[in-house]
Amino acid sequence: MGVQEGLQQIFHPESIAVVGTNRKKGTVPHDIFANLLQDNFQGVLYPVSPGEHAISGVKAYKYIVDIEDPVDLAVIVFPSSVMHLAMKQLGEKGVKSAIIISAGFREVGEKGKEREEQIKEIAAEHDIHFIGPNCLGVINTGPAVHMNASFARKMPEEGNIAFLSQSGALCTAVLDYARSKHIGFSKFISFGNKADINEIDLLRYLKDDPKTDVILIYLEEISDGRALMDVAQEIISETGKPILTIKAGRTEEGATAAASHTGSLAGSDEVCDAALRQAGIIRCTTIEEMFNKAIALAYQPIPSKNRVAIITNAGGPGVLAADAAVREDLELASFNDETTEIFKKHLPSTANIKNPVDVIGDARADRYRVAVSTTMKDDNVDGTLVILTPQSMTDIEAIAEAVVEVGSHESKPLYASFMGEADVATGIDILQRHKIPHYILPESMCSAFTSAYQFHNIRQRDTNTIPKFADADTKQVSNLLEEAQTECLTHLPEMYATPVLKAYGFPTLPGGIATSAEDAVKMAQEVGYPVVMKIMSKDIVHKIDIGGIVLNVISEDEVHRAYQYILKNAHKSSPDAEIDGIYVQKMVTGGEEVILGIKRDPSFGPVVMFGLGGTYVEVFHDVSFRVAPFGPGTADAMIHETTAYNLLSGIRGKSPRDVSALSDALQRLAQLAVDFPMIQELDINPFIVLDDGEGGFAADARIMLSKQE
Amino acid sequence: MGVQEGLQQIFHPESIAVVGTNRKKGTVPHDIFANLLQDNFQGVLYPVSPGEHAISGVKAYKYIVDIEDPVDLAVIVFPSSVMHLAMKQLGEKGVKSAIIISAGFREVGEKGKEREEQIKEIAAEHDIHFIGPNCLGVINTGPAVHMNASFARKMPEEGNIAFLSQSGALCTAVLDYARSKHIGFSKFISFGNKADINEIDLLRYLKDDPKTDVILIYLEEISDGRALMDVAQEIISETGKPILTIKAGRTEEGATAAASHTGSLAGSDEVCDAALRQAGIIRCTTIEEMFNKAIALAYQPIPSKNRVAIITNAGGPGVLAADAAVREDLELASFNDETTEIFKKHLPSTANIKNPVDVIGDARADRYRVAVSTTMKDDNVDGTLVILTPQSMTDIEAIAEAVVEVGSHESKPLYASFMGEADVATGIDILQRHKIPHYILPESMCSAFTSAYQFHNIRQRDTNTIPKFADADTKQVSNLLEEAQTECLTHLPEMYATPVLKAYGFPTLPGGIATSAEDAVKMAQEVGYPVVMKIMSKDIVHKIDIGGIVLNVISEDEVHRAYQYILKNAHKSSPDAEIDGIYVQKMVTGGEEVILGIKRDPSFGPVVMFGLGGTYVEVFHDVSFRVAPFGPGTADAMIHETTAYNLLSGIRGKSPRDVSALSDALQRLAQLAVDFPMIQELDINPFIVLDDGEGGFAADARIMLSKQE
Repeated sequence: MGVQEGLQQIFHPESIAVVGTNRKKGTVPHDIFANLLQDNFQGVLYPVSPGEHAISGVKAYKYIVDIEDPVDLAVIVFPSSVMHLAMKQLGEKGVKSAIIISAGFREVGEKGKEREEQIKEIAAEHDIHFIGPNCLGVINTGPAVHMNASFARKMPEEGNIAFLSQSGALCTAVLDYARSKHIGFSKFISFGNKADINEIDLLRYLKDDPKTDVILIYLEEISDGRALMDVAQEIISETGKPILTIKAGRTEEGATAAASHTGSLAGSDEVCDAALRQAGIIRCTTIEEMFNKAIALAYQPIPSKNRVAIITNAGGPGVLAADAAVREDLELASFNDETTEIFKKHLPSTANIKNPVDVIGDARADRYRVAVSTTMKDDNVDGTLVILTPQSMTDIEAIAEAVVEVGSHESKPLYASFMGEADVATGIDILQRHKIPHYILPESMCSAFTSAYQFHNIRQRDTNTIPKFADADTKQVSNLLEEAQTECLTHLPEMYATPVLKAYGFPTLPGGIATSAEDAVKMAQEVGYPVVMKIMSKDIVHKIDIGGIVLNVISEDEVHRAYQYILKNAHKSSPDAEIDGIYVQKMVTGGEEVILGIKRDPSFGPVVMFGLGGTYVEVFHDVSFRVAPFGPGTADAMIHETTAYNLLSGIRGKSPRDVSALSDALQRLAQLAVDFPMIQELDINPFIVLDDGEGGFAADARIMLSKQE
Repeated sequence: MGVQEGLQQIFHPESIAVVGTNRKKGTVPHDIFANLLQDNFQGVLYPVSPGEHAISGVKAYKYIVDIEDPVDLAVIVFPSSVMHLAMKQLGEKGVKSAIIISAGFREVGEKGKEREEQIKEIAAEHDIHFIGPNCLGVINTGPAVHMNASFARKMPEEGNIAFLSQSGALCTAVLDYARSKHIGFSKFISFGNKADINEIDLLRYLKDDPKTDVILIYLEEISDGRALMDVAQEIISETGKPILTIKAGRTEEGATAAASHTGSLAGSDEVCDAALRQAGIIRCTTIEEMFNKAIALAYQPIPSKNRVAIITNAGGPGVLAADAAVREDLELASFNDETTEIFKKHLPSTANIKNPVDVIGDARADRYRVAVSTTMKDDNVDGTLVILTPQSMTDIEAIAEAVVEVGSHESKPLYASFMGEADVATGIDILQRHKIPHYILPESMCSAFTSAYQFHNIRQRDTNTIPKFADADTKQVSNLLEEAQTECLTHLPEMYATPVLKAYGFPTLPGGIATSAEDAVKMAQEVGYPVVMKIMSKDIVHKIDIGGIVLNVISEDEVHRAYQYILKNAHKSSPDAEIDGIYVQKMVTGGEEVILGIKRDPSFGPVVMFGLGGTYVEVFHDVSFRVAPFGPGTADAMIHETTAYNLLSGIRGKSPRDVSALSDALQRLAQLAVDFPMIQELDINPFIVLDDGEGGFAADARIMLSKQE
């Protein structure tokens, strides 16, 4: 049985055996059976408990093999020390899917890890697929199944959001939070140690789940970064379902805490952040932020542009909302003439009929209805944000109902923020029950709108077109790298790295190695002054530090002087270095210096880096990353995302640089990274971007190869 | 009567007349009297209503002058069109303080502005001080007064937080929010249009109010920036009370909305932001953020360092909290041996006894009590953050009580985050009633701790020491600027600006004006090569654009060539320019280029600017501001707050620059800005900061004088 069939059975079993249950209320083994029973599971339940003859009035079996009928799913709450026996019995009975609730595995150290390996082996042997161990369980709210196979106190409402979590404890907090806001779920899955079924399998399952429109996932550790990206891109491009995630371990301290908690090793968080963005996954920092964005995506249409109308009955909150909207990159819509006319006619003269629209403190439902329905019909408006503060004459419930009614007739998004808590509670309740996303703060409302609008753009992206550069000479690079390996080189300096880049179609600067001053003069004349002269030796890594580089050499005389100067410095600092000669290279003046690079991430594999050159990369840490391979859209995005882009785009009357040459170089680098896994790191520093149309050059480079085994 | 006496009477009246009240329930005029009566005001109430003989069973008077006894305070709900009549009657009756609730003044345009001016005149004539118009009213929760002189639906609990708001509507939302979280207030003041009493007067009053420990203020427009800074610094340094503010209009759109709402003009928000920080005021973006920080400051001790212990019963939230702590610049405390021993003895072996401490999902109150009390006694811990997720065996109320009990015996701060909503509600209620700051999210808890710790540092700051540079030659600068004014110059180029800086003790580069090439050679030899040569003409502002500057001139020959080159360019581009000569100046090589400047803000007055030089100031907008005058602490803070500071401090083995010379220059600039209000703008671009101990130089400068009237 494949994993997906296993999952289908986990979510839609006709019969469940709860293995290891007991009669002690308030314990996990008891509660999990009681939950299934009380929450009205639509199939047959079999308690399995060696010491009892009945649980909650239902006949109990000593062993699972004793059950006379077939069992689709086993929910196991046996102690970890004897779990292998339970698993063997599953095999014997022919049960093919399981949820293992019990803790005491990988998360408790070496001993537990052994146990986990053992049950994995038994499961593989008997073709069993399972969720867990060390989890809260699984919930399917669908009325045909209605399964609460978890020890969560209460079953959530039905809804179109799926929630997956690596942390069981977080699940209980989330269920509690969601219940108070009438947020419903299609599936609710705590997957714990993911010894068998992992987040990739679950995402693939939810892709085709007709009950799920939005997927939320809490992760402490990513099993396979590349696979996660692939399945996410597949889900978004094929079904348009948004995926939101909280990935813990943003900081080093957080990662350490996560590692001690899950026993895993994390890659760099900035790579993870970039990779999630590249895959179209919306990363959130807090549970609240995740649900604020999720309800917007799950309840309302996705806006196709970012022009919002704000409607308020109070100036102050209107100002705060306008501030927040602009901070979140929204535009305040300019209303069309028709809207303005209607407002002039139906709103009081003291009202502010420009955006944000202030319907004034004494506004009642009729005024709100006019304002909301008119803005929703305005072609210049892509969505409406309604704010209410409770004044003594505000008919809060009637306004909530008016908002709900207008919202249900429109294909544009409508969100609301009824400020305060106690007084507006019944109004909020009406909104929440009718799927109008509600926010305590106008600021969160704006941020949710932006997120929905960004998801519109994510859906439009083309991430599938990845060019294959036909002029990239794979064979030659193979030869060059193998040659270096036979020489036992791992750090390849410029003289080795530049030919590699050249073979992959990178523009490099003309030049060559001179072994005498006369040679150098000849070369300088060939490439044309000014030139740069650099020491070439595989024993000298930091050329600039030892005085091994002279810039801006402009005459025969100066070539002679520079030649001697460089050699003298090299001999002085590294008397034993084997010197190949001096590299004489055309010097480019003008242009913007940037850095391009390749590195490898333990979780996501080949990563391409782009950043501003010079000292500034260190000071401003203005860099962006993407996982290779990628196409032009992604390359452009990684350039645009840096502040350095402003330098390239031609601020303050400066001429714009050749960004398309830069984009081309990044894509070639991505291809190189994928084609040659032996390249551990590569830096092009600097890559010089010339004016628009004039291209760019890899002016210096170095490669680090992985150590041979 | 002074404003402060007026305020004392507004907050502690023995008798109140409500002028313009009526019998119509649900209207402001009625509700305001009913609120005072029902909320149990401790003095005497007199309804004044021309058409009624009694309101809510209390004898009504036709006019305020008809009241036989003296009246301390008038609360006025008369229509704005006849407000002047009401004010005249107050004068006649001898009432000296008032709260004007009615709207229809400055906020509705020209007509309303006239009305507002009229009542201000009448008030001044009769020595009346008043709050409003256009406000929600004033609340004093003190049991000896117990005054709800507002149309807010319910009176808040008593507490040690004062809340001031320019927006009335926001007040109702805030009261509602606070009630649901048991947040109490000492005074609650909606001050509306502040036609008489403004936020400065109120802050001065609250400074000495024994019931108020923390002050919150929502502002749309600042009456007098300098005065606000002064009163804030006075409050913080003399009483240690923190002030938190939301200042609306962060973005241009927000400012426009605020202007249309309050009829005011705003200065630059980045100056406002810097000025509030300089004054020690904690600026918040949202109501929720403000209260999250306020309860930490109002309920618990202020931490003196930033090492926190995190205690959790679930790994996931522990990781998220560790991430958040580090992101908020907190340190995860390393426990001392004693703590570790106690944890080993009293916590289960599966617990994580390092920070974040995981007491494991099945923890009950006893385990929480051990963990919290032990960390609170650890010398390496400055505060404890408790996280709880509801598991089936968690005794939530008992844990809340344990936290409260431990917290009440310690002089370090203790905050909590019980995650979820419905299930943990009773636990949260216990925490809130006992002044343990509670946060829905561990992230908000960390951010509140950081804010409290930062306030500790704000309290320690010395903002009073402002040096007076004795070597600053005020007289000479006066002469130089007057001379420029007699010549009708407003844009002073380098040749005028440099002497001004020199007279104020700024290090400048030696040089002088040459009127012949021979002259220039002589000067170059005097100051030493290399030199910079620049065209000097008051008619040429952008020297560099016309080819009027030659850098790095290193020989007599080159001086000759540069002299001719510059003159030729000047004649070509500006044939009619009056040329004073060519400035020959010592050239400094090395050093970091920064920009210093003066500008004037409509609200805060003289402002000094510091930023990174070159193109990067535009790209990264890496600048900081402070209001002049200021001392060394402030100058250092404005340098440290920029990212450019990393460039100056010596990253990656670079030699650190002379930051103290830079600090000196900023303070001198502040003094110059204060001494000469006629200086509208001044730029030193670049100021070159040399290596530590070698000082710095103002290498070029320009001054813009204000236009003479």
